[in-house]
Amino acid sequence: MRKAPELYAVLLAGGSGTRFWPASRRGKPKQYLRIAGEQSMLAETAARLEGIVPAERTYVVTVRSQLDLVRRALPGLPEGNLLAEPLARNTGPCVALAALEIALRDPASLQVELPADHVIHPRESFQRTLLAAARAAAATPALHVFGIRPTHPATAYGWILAGRRLGEEQGIAVHAVERFVEKPDLARARGFLEHGGYYWNSGMFVWSSAAIERALSEHLPAVHQALSRPLALAELERAYAGLPQVSIDVGVLERERDVRMLPIDYFWSDVGSWDALAGVHAADERGNVASGGALLEALDARGCIVHGDPGALIALIGVEDLVVVQSGGVTLVCRRERAQEVKQLVERLARARGEFL
Amino acid sequence: MRKAPELYAVLLAGGSGTRFWPASRRGKPKQYLRIAGEQSMLAETAARLEGIVPAERTYVVTVRSQLDLVRRALPGLPEGNLLAEPLARNTGPCVALAALEIALRDPASLQVELPADHVIHPRESFQRTLLAAARAAAATPALHVFGIRPTHPATAYGWILAGRRLGEEQGIAVHAVERFVEKPDLARARGFLEHGGYYWNSGMFVWSSAAIERALSEHLPAVHQALSRPLALAELERAYAGLPQVSIDVGVLERERDVRMLPIDYFWSDVGSWDALAGVHAADERGNVASGGALLEALDARGCIVHGDPGALIALIGVEDLVVVQSGGVTLVCRRERAQEVKQLVERLARARGEFL
Repeated sequence: MRKAPELYAVLLAGGSGTRFWPASRRGKPKQYLRIAGEQSMLAETAARLEGIVPAERTYVVTVRSQLDLVRRALPGLPEGNLLAEPLARNTGPCVALAALEIALRDPASLQVELPADHVIHPRESFQRTLLAAARAAAATPALHVFGIRPTHPATAYGWILAGRRLGEEQGIAVHAVERFVEKPDLARARGFLEHGGYYWNSGMFVWSSAAIERALSEHLPAVHQALSRPLALAELERAYAGLPQVSIDVGVLERERDVRMLPIDYFWSDVGSWDALAGVHAADERGNVASGGALLEALDARGCIVHGDPGALIALIGVEDLVVVQSGGVTLVCRRERAQEVKQLVERLARARGEFL
Repeated sequence: MRKAPELYAVLLAGGSGTRFWPASRRGKPKQYLRIAGEQSMLAETAARLEGIVPAERTYVVTVRSQLDLVRRALPGLPEGNLLAEPLARNTGPCVALAALEIALRDPASLQVELPADHVIHPRESFQRTLLAAARAAAATPALHVFGIRPTHPATAYGWILAGRRLGEEQGIAVHAVERFVEKPDLARARGFLEHGGYYWNSGMFVWSSAAIERALSEHLPAVHQALSRPLALAELERAYAGLPQVSIDVGVLERERDVRMLPIDYFWSDVGSWDALAGVHAADERGNVASGGALLEALDARGCIVHGDPGALIALIGVEDLVVVQSGGVTLVCRRERAQEVKQLVERLARARGEFL
């Protein structure tokens, strides 16, 4: 009897954003923050695989400056499973680096690629979808993507038009992907929502090692060639310098004939700004949400999102719909609906007061 | 030729309030904070006397637990000029303690008693009023009080009805005090403002040592008797235990026949809450005010009052009329018009989270 293929996980943890400033800083991006639960988002992503993918089969791709952050977030991760890109080259090379490493180690394996800064629950539902996708990927050379059932006309995500239902795995439908759509404007997004059959592209993929290797060699041959054998540090640096800067979606998924989609219709969030924490945490009876471990003391405050380190206290009196963040000598107070503007504030600080970034 | 009497100052620094929490804590009341300028309010009060009252003739009355705070705020203060009350007994015994000590040291002297947590400017105007009052006090055995020309129907202050103009010193009118009025309700305060001739009782007094000694012996004989000779620590404790808890206003000023008033019609504030900082500091072009040494970075924010320690940053996006304070692991965000409610918040914390007080 043939051994069932093993499932490996690749956690994509190299991102660096500014939308969670001042909790996230240059040296500590969102995936290392306790903004969505008791642990860092990276640790919660790994924990979401508990019972399915053990640490030995979990890989993390990051950038060199974040290696220690990963080690601290995932102390059980084998050192050899920690991959550092010498340069950021978008998700194409990043996914290829890990996917080809796993393909070399275990050619018969399956893989799931997960951004390390999403919130998904309940965990059981996610694991059911993941196992269904793994079964599907074991049975066909197709690439699989998780599609999020949309709740609003989001312009921040790529969308997927689901096509024919090809079958199901363990009660979960598997659809052909009709097409991928880049981030739409609001009018188009509204149209998609009204039309039905559209999903958000989650950036979570499941495939066999053989399938992704074949797809990379076909659609990103330079990347495939550069990364399909183990490289010493200096070689990797030279190789990366010549790689195209391309996302895995544009470079591979959109060019591939047979991409399939499994829907996620339970809670998912990529927590794109402080405001998004409202959907992620339980609120008190007045709609206030606390994260990060800080205590909240509110006197007649409503709809506020607060974040601070354990041991800190955030006190509110008579305020509504604010984001209040206290971190490392910086306090941010922002109207919730303007949480996207944190980015602009950070840009302004970069010019004048870089010590706070 | 007789030597002109020397002017001594008594700075009343024993207060402990909660209205500037979280910058002020149990161990560090308002007078030791940098909320109104570059130095602590106590140091700024002493600096306001520069050129008129040197450190050798400046006394500070405080409570034992604040002795080191005074020493740090006023490193030039002679140790013998630092008086500690063993118990808080309102301002009557507190003023008497210093006034009688100075009377013993220099019976022919004059005194000015100043709360250590007021903001007054310009300094030159204040010094002019002070010198005028000192001249007046040298010429008569009357007690003198500074009256603040009212700008609104304040219910938080005692009021003074000015009577007949008795004369002037250096261009500043000296009025008889017709009567003192305890903190009025809003309707009465409005009436005073409309009526004219009413002033706020500043709690700042000028008198000769002989005059205050005589007034104390007449109106607060027990206090006078207990404190009119130098006392060892244990004696002072015993003496204080038996003293009445009475303010200098009620215990002496209101009972005295000949009290006179000099008006202050330039800027004065007792900075009764965070909201009051708006009057004390220069605002930026959008009405935002920063104090305490923290940097402020504002993106479309208006009318906000922020306070933080030097080295801290407070960032605001799209907010209006807020108080934002960051201090020692605590952040307070409060609507300006509700700044009085800090007191209630502190009371609530006292029951549950005393470690933040």
